[in-house]
Amino acid sequence: MAGSTLGTLLSVTTWGESHGRGIGVVIDGCPAGLALTEQDIQIYLNRRKPGQSRFTTPRKEDDVVEILSGVFEGKTTGTPISLMVRNTSQRSKDYREIASYYRPGHADYTYDCKYGFRDYTGGGRSSGRETIGRVAAGAVAAKLLSELGITITAYTRSIGPVTIEPDRFDLTQMEKNAVNMPDAKAAALAEAYLDQCRQHNDSCGGVVECVISGIPAGVGEPCFDKLSANLAKAVCSIGAVKGFEIGDGFEAAKALGSVNNDAFYQKENGAIGKKTNHSGGVLGGISDGSDLIFRAAFKPTPSIRADQQTVSKTGEEITISIQGRHDPIIVPRAVVVVECMAALTVLDMLMVSMTSRLERIKYFFGV
Amino acid sequence: MAGSTLGTLLSVTTWGESHGRGIGVVIDGCPAGLALTEQDIQIYLNRRKPGQSRFTTPRKEDDVVEILSGVFEGKTTGTPISLMVRNTSQRSKDYREIASYYRPGHADYTYDCKYGFRDYTGGGRSSGRETIGRVAAGAVAAKLLSELGITITAYTRSIGPVTIEPDRFDLTQMEKNAVNMPDAKAAALAEAYLDQCRQHNDSCGGVVECVISGIPAGVGEPCFDKLSANLAKAVCSIGAVKGFEIGDGFEAAKALGSVNNDAFYQKENGAIGKKTNHSGGVLGGISDGSDLIFRAAFKPTPSIRADQQTVSKTGEEITISIQGRHDPIIVPRAVVVVECMAALTVLDMLMVSMTSRLERIKYFFGV
Amino acid sequence: MAGSTLGTLLSVTTWGESHGRGIGVVIDGCPAGLALTEQDIQIYLNRRKPGQSRFTTPRKEDDVVEILSGVFEGKTTGTPISLMVRNTSQRSKDYREIASYYRPGHADYTYDCKYGFRDYTGGGRSSGRETIGRVAAGAVAAKLLSELGITITAYTRSIGPVTIEPDRFDLTQMEKNAVNMPDAKAAALAEAYLDQCRQHNDSCGGVVECVISGIPAGVGEPCFDKLSANLAKAVCSIGAVKGFEIGDGFEAAKALGSVNNDAFYQKENGAIGKKTNHSGGVLGGISDGSDLIFRAAFKPTPSIRADQQTVSKTGEEITISIQGRHDPIIVPRAVVVVECMAALTVLDMLMVSMTSRLERIKYFFGV
Amino acid sequence: MAGSTLGTLLSVTTWGESHGRGIGVVIDGCPAGLALTEQDIQIYLNRRKPGQSRFTTPRKEDDVVEILSGVFEGKTTGTPISLMVRNTSQRSKDYREIASYYRPGHADYTYDCKYGFRDYTGGGRSSGRETIGRVAAGAVAAKLLSELGITITAYTRSIGPVTIEPDRFDLTQMEKNAVNMPDAKAAALAEAYLDQCRQHNDSCGGVVECVISGIPAGVGEPCFDKLSANLAKAVCSIGAVKGFEIGDGFEAAKALGSVNNDAFYQKENGAIGKKTNHSGGVLGGISDGSDLIFRAAFKPTPSIRADQQTVSKTGEEITISIQGRHDPIIVPRAVVVVECMAALTVLDMLMVSMTSRLERIKYFFGV
Repeated sequence: MAGSTLGTLLSVTTWGESHGRGIGVVIDGCPAGLALTEQDIQIYLNRRKPGQSRFTTPRKEDDVVEILSGVFEGKTTGTPISLMVRNTSQRSKDYREIASYYRPGHADYTYDCKYGFRDYTGGGRSSGRETIGRVAAGAVAAKLLSELGITITAYTRSIGPVTIEPDRFDLTQMEKNAVNMPDAKAAALAEAYLDQCRQHNDSCGGVVECVISGIPAGVGEPCFDKLSANLAKAVCSIGAVKGFEIGDGFEAAKALGSVNNDAFYQKENGAIGKKTNHSGGVLGGISDGSDLIFRAAFKPTPSIRADQQTVSKTGEEITISIQGRHDPIIVPRAVVVVECMAALTVLDMLMVSMTSRLERIKYFFGV
Repeated sequence: MAGSTLGTLLSVTTWGESHGRGIGVVIDGCPAGLALTEQDIQIYLNRRKPGQSRFTTPRKEDDVVEILSGVFEGKTTGTPISLMVRNTSQRSKDYREIASYYRPGHADYTYDCKYGFRDYTGGGRSSGRETIGRVAAGAVAAKLLSELGITITAYTRSIGPVTIEPDRFDLTQMEKNAVNMPDAKAAALAEAYLDQCRQHNDSCGGVVECVISGIPAGVGEPCFDKLSANLAKAVCSIGAVKGFEIGDGFEAAKALGSVNNDAFYQKENGAIGKKTNHSGGVLGGISDGSDLIFRAAFKPTPSIRADQQTVSKTGEEITISIQGRHDPIIVPRAVVVVECMAALTVLDMLMVSMTSRLERIKYFFGV
Repeated sequence: MAGSTLGTLLSVTTWGESHGRGIGVVIDGCPAGLALTEQDIQIYLNRRKPGQSRFTTPRKEDDVVEILSGVFEGKTTGTPISLMVRNTSQRSKDYREIASYYRPGHADYTYDCKYGFRDYTGGGRSSGRETIGRVAAGAVAAKLLSELGITITAYTRSIGPVTIEPDRFDLTQMEKNAVNMPDAKAAALAEAYLDQCRQHNDSCGGVVECVISGIPAGVGEPCFDKLSANLAKAVCSIGAVKGFEIGDGFEAAKALGSVNNDAFYQKENGAIGKKTNHSGGVLGGISDGSDLIFRAAFKPTPSIRADQQTVSKTGEEITISIQGRHDPIIVPRAVVVVECMAALTVLDMLMVSMTSRLERIKYFFGV
Repeated sequence: MAGSTLGTLLSVTTWGESHGRGIGVVIDGCPAGLALTEQDIQIYLNRRKPGQSRFTTPRKEDDVVEILSGVFEGKTTGTPISLMVRNTSQRSKDYREIASYYRPGHADYTYDCKYGFRDYTGGGRSSGRETIGRVAAGAVAAKLLSELGITITAYTRSIGPVTIEPDRFDLTQMEKNAVNMPDAKAAALAEAYLDQCRQHNDSCGGVVECVISGIPAGVGEPCFDKLSANLAKAVCSIGAVKGFEIGDGFEAAKALGSVNNDAFYQKENGAIGKKTNHSGGVLGGISDGSDLIFRAAFKPTPSIRADQQTVSKTGEEITISIQGRHDPIIVPRAVVVVECMAALTVLDMLMVSMTSRLERIKYFFGV
C-alpha cells in the first residue's frame, strides 16, 4: 500500500492536508459495543491543539471532530468509524513564497522528487496537522484499551539539554507547565531554554517517553511483527521522529548481560514477575507482563526565522528566513501523538494475539 | 498476519527453529531476470556463521543454502524463491534442563504465555538461527540493489564502552578483526573488553551502524510507510535490538534547528545536494538523495554463565548458570543481519515508489 | 483487516451507513498528476442514482460528492484522496419496525450474530448505499485507466428470463432504456417483465456483463492474486452478487478442450493474437491481450411487499410485508458498480505488474 | 504482494515449480496446540495424486510431504509451519519442444509477456503441481476446523454434459468411482463420456460442488472481505477455474425475490433457522448458520493430443499436437483442492471474526 493504512485487525487509514478541506481517519475493525462520543475524541485532539501555551503557535485551530460513521445509538457498530476535522483557520496566502524554494529540514524537496509537484500550502500532507488523524483514531483505541485495564501515559522526558529527574518525577505536574514535563523544576529550566531558542530565532529537539501498564504477557508476534518492532514503526512514522528505543535502549548497548537480564521471581499471587525492567516490557518481542516503556527522539522544528541557505525551484542558491507562526519545539504537542500511536499498535496486536492457541479458539466457539 | 511475512511488493516469509529440520525463507515478488546462484547467498550466510573468531560460538554450523524454486537457467523467474538451510549440528540433549525454567532475557516465558508451551530446544523459533532466513533473503535483495547502483554497508560501531573514531575509520579493517570494526585500534580495545567479559562469565551489548549509498531521492511513502519507519520496524524486529536511530537520532533531540537542518545547494551537475546530512538521508520519511545512515542498539547476549535468579515452570525460585556455547556479544554476527533487513526494506519501497507518478506509468505502458 | 480496505498499491477504504451522516472512501496510492474534478466522479455517481426510471426507487438522493483531500490545483498529489457524499434524504422513521425482526434475504440476522446489535436504519452498513464509496473510487480509477487506453464497459445482460441477443447488441441503446440493456427489444421485454414483478409485489434477479479493452498482456500475478481471482473477489463483494464467471465461465465446464482452447495467430503488426476468446482475456490468471470479459449474477431485491415468514428478535414467528421504496431489480443500478470494482482491480494489478522484470526496474532508474 | 500469500490471520505462502526441486508452503498464524503429523497431510495429498484411475495421468508421483518447522512434540507451536514435497519423477526432456511455442489454453504466452521468459519445464509455476502447496496447507486448516465441528466436503457435480441427480446423491459412492461423483449412475455416464473424449484426443470440463457444515453464524466481514467474496477469490485462484457461484448462484439471477428469500423460523432449541437455503449459507456476506454451498466451474484440460493452431516464439504459425501424460479432465483431482481452499478461507475468517465484539475481548482478557 501507499502507506496511509496501518494495522492488521484494527486498521487505520488517514487522509488530509494542512490547508485542504479537512483531515480525517477511517478506523476499520474496531470491535462493536464500545461506548463512543465525539467528546471522547475531542479530549485527545485538544491535547495536541496549538495555542495552549507561549511555546505553541498562536494560531486558533478549533479542530472539532465529527463522527461520520460506525457509531449507532452511542456505541461502535463494528463497521468503519470515519472521523473528520474540518480545516478552518488556514490562510494560504502565507505560503506563496514557500512554493518557490525548498525549506531545509522539510519534505518539500523529497515530495517534488517523488510526485513531480506538491501541495505547498502549509506543508500539505507532510504538515504536523497530519497527526490529527492519528490522534483521533488513537483516542478510540485508548478508550477501548482502558476498558481492558490498559493505560498509556506519555510525557516530555527532555527538551534540548534539560531532562527530567527520576526523584522529582510527578505526573500531576504535566498539566501545570507548558511543556508537558512531569517534573516542575525541569519544566522551568526547559521553558527558560525555549525562551532563549526563540530569542535566537532558533528551535530545539527533545524526547518523549511513554509507559503502558496492564498489557497481559503474550502480546506480540515472534518474527517481524514483534510488539517492539511494530511500536518502532508506529512511532518512527511520526513526522519529526529520528529515533526509538525500548527499555534501556541504547544504554543496553553499553551494558553487561548480568545487569541487563531481568531476574524472574514468584509474586505473592503465584504469578511470575521481574525484579527489574531493563527489557522495557518485551522479551523476544512479546509482552512479558511488565510495564512497556519506550522513548522517541524528536528533531528540532525545522521552520526557523534564522537565516538558512537553500536552493530555489529554478536552481538558484538563496538565503531564506521562514516567517509565520511556528512552535520552537515539537515535543509538548507530540506527547499525545506518541500515546495514540502506541494505543493503535497495542490494541491491534492484542486482538491478533487472541488466536494464538487452539484451546482459546475452541473455548470461544463453545467446543 | 502472524508476523513472519514482511513487505508489500517484495515480501519475505521466514520459517524454522533452531533445532528443527531446517530454516528457510520464501521471497515473493522478486523481479524476473536477476542472475542468482546459491553462491551469491552463501557468501552472506557465511558472514553470519559462528566459529569465525574467538568471540563467536565454536559450534560448527555449515548452513549450506539450497535454492528450491524461483530460479531457472540461472535467473530469477519472478515466481517465489524458496531458500532452505538444513539444520545439521544441533544437539538437543544440551537443552533438556532449559525446558524446566525461564531463562532471564530470553523469550521462554513470553512464548509459554502466548502459546501455552514452547519448543525449548535451542530457543526454537526465538533462536538467533532465525536470522538465517533474513540473511538468505537479504542477500538476494542486496544483489538486485547492487545492479541498480545501491550499496549497503554495515559495521560494528561500538562494543560495550568502545566506539569507533571517525578519524580512524577504515572499512578495509573490518575483515581483519574478529569484531567487524572498521577501526583497528577500537577493534583491539573491544577484543580486550570482550575477553574480560568472558572471564567474568558475562556478556555485553553494542551498536551496529549501516550506510546505504545510491538510493535516488523520492523513495518512501508519506505517512505510516516512511522509509525511516519501515527501516525501524525491520531493524527492531531483529531479536536483540532495543533501539533504532536514523541520521543524528537521539543527538538530534539535543540539537538546535539551525544546526540540525541540512542546507541545500546546487551541485555542479545541476542536481540538488545537501551540505550536511544530519537527517540521515530522509526528509519527511522519503529519501533525499544523500546517504542513508542508521544505527541499531543490541542488548548483551542473554545467555551467560554467571549465576542468575529465576523461576522454574513449577513455580520455584532457583539459581541457574547457563552452560553451552554462547557468544559474549551478538553484534559482530548481527552486522550482516542489519544489512540484509535494510536491503529488503529499501528494495521493497523502491519498487513501490515506481508508481508514484502518472507520467511514469504512462511512459511504462507506452502511452 | 476487517474488510473495508481493498488493494495492494491502489487501495481503497470505504465507510458509511445508509442513514448516518454520509458515505465515503479514501483512495490511497493513486499516482500523482491525474487531472481530477468532482464532476469526473459525479458522472459515475449519477449513473447509480435512484429515481432515474420507473424501476428505480423514487427517493430523491442527491449524492453530491466532495473531494476532501489529495487533489491540488486540479491534479492528484499522490497522497490519499478522500471523497464524501453526505446523506440528505434519509427518513429514519420508516425503519423503526424493521428493528424488531429479521428481514429474509437481508443481513439483519447475520449482523446481529456478528456484532451483538446493528444499525437498523436503512440497512446500515449493509445497505446498497454502501456502493457509493465503491463508485466514487472507481470513477477515479476508470479515469486514470482511460488515460492508459483501457476502457471498461458494463451493461445489463439479463433480467429474470430475458437475455440480450448478440445480433441485436447495440451499446447506444443502453441509455435509451430504463434497464441499461444494449438491446432495444430485450429491454422492452425486460421492462414488461419488471412491471409484472411489481404488480405481484415481487422482485427479480439478473446478470451484469463487463468488457475491459486495452489491458496489455502480462497483468495479474501467478498464484492467489490472479487477475481473474481478484476480479472474482471484487465483484462478489458487491452486496447481492451470488456468482462470477470469466470468459465462457460455467459453459466452459461443459465444453471440449479442442473448442475451449483459443488458437494463437500472428497479427499483421507482428503481435500475437487469439482467434477466439473463450478464456475471457486471461491465461493462467494473467491478461493475454484480448478483451477481458466477465459476468456477475445478482439475486432479486430482497425487500418485497409480498408476505414473508420470519422471526422477531424476541423469537416469535411472524408474517411481514416490507413497505417503502424499493427497486424490483438491483441490476440496472449495479452496472456502474461492477464497472467500478473492475476499474479498481485492474488499475491495482496493473501497477503491481510494473515491477515484474528487473530490466524494467533498471530502465526506470536509468541504469 | 506478488500474490503467493493468502490470508489475514492464517496466511499461507506457496512456492515451487513442476520440475524444480520441490513444491511447498509456509503456514503462518496456525494456532498452537493442534496435534499434527505428516500423515494428516499425506492423506490429503494422496487424494490429489495422479495415477489413481484410468482418467488421471499414469505418472508415478510420490508427493511425500515433510514437516520442516512449526511442530514440536506432535503439536503445532504457533510459529510458521513449513511443508515441502520434493519433486522426484519429473523428466525434463519431455518439455524441450514446448519451450519453442505457446500452447493454447496455457499460461506460456502470458508468462513470457509478464516476465520476459519462463520456466517451460512442465509448466513451471503454472503447473497443476502448484496445487500441492494449497492442499498441504488446507489439510492443516481442515484438521483444525474439524476440531471446531466444521466439516468440508467437495465432490464432482458434473463432467461435460453429465450432472449428478439429487435423488441419487450418495457420498459413499465417491470413493467407488474414478471421477469422485457421489452418484453411481452419473459416474458411469461420465466415465463413458471421458473415454470418448480420450478417443478423440480431446478433453472436457466440469463442476465441483462444496458443502461446509458447522460454521457458526457471524463469520465474514461486511464489505470487501465478505465470506463469499474471499471464497470466490480463493476458488478462482485455482488454475483452471472459470466461474464461482454460491447458493443458487446464476440461477438466482433468474429467480423471483419471493422464492429466493429464505424464510426464518424458530428451531425447537430456540435458535433461528432458515426454511430453505437459496442463499448458500451467507447473508450480506456473513455466515447465517446454514450449510455453506458453492460451486466452481473448471475448463477442460488444455493439453490435448488433437491438432491445434498456434504461434512459435519466433513468430511462425504452426500446428502442434501435445504429447505426454495428461488427464482428459481436471475435476476429479481438483475436488480436494477446492476443499482445501475453502478450509483455508473459512479458518482465516473465523479467526478474524473472534474480535468483532468488545464483550468477547473483555471476556477473553478476564475483564
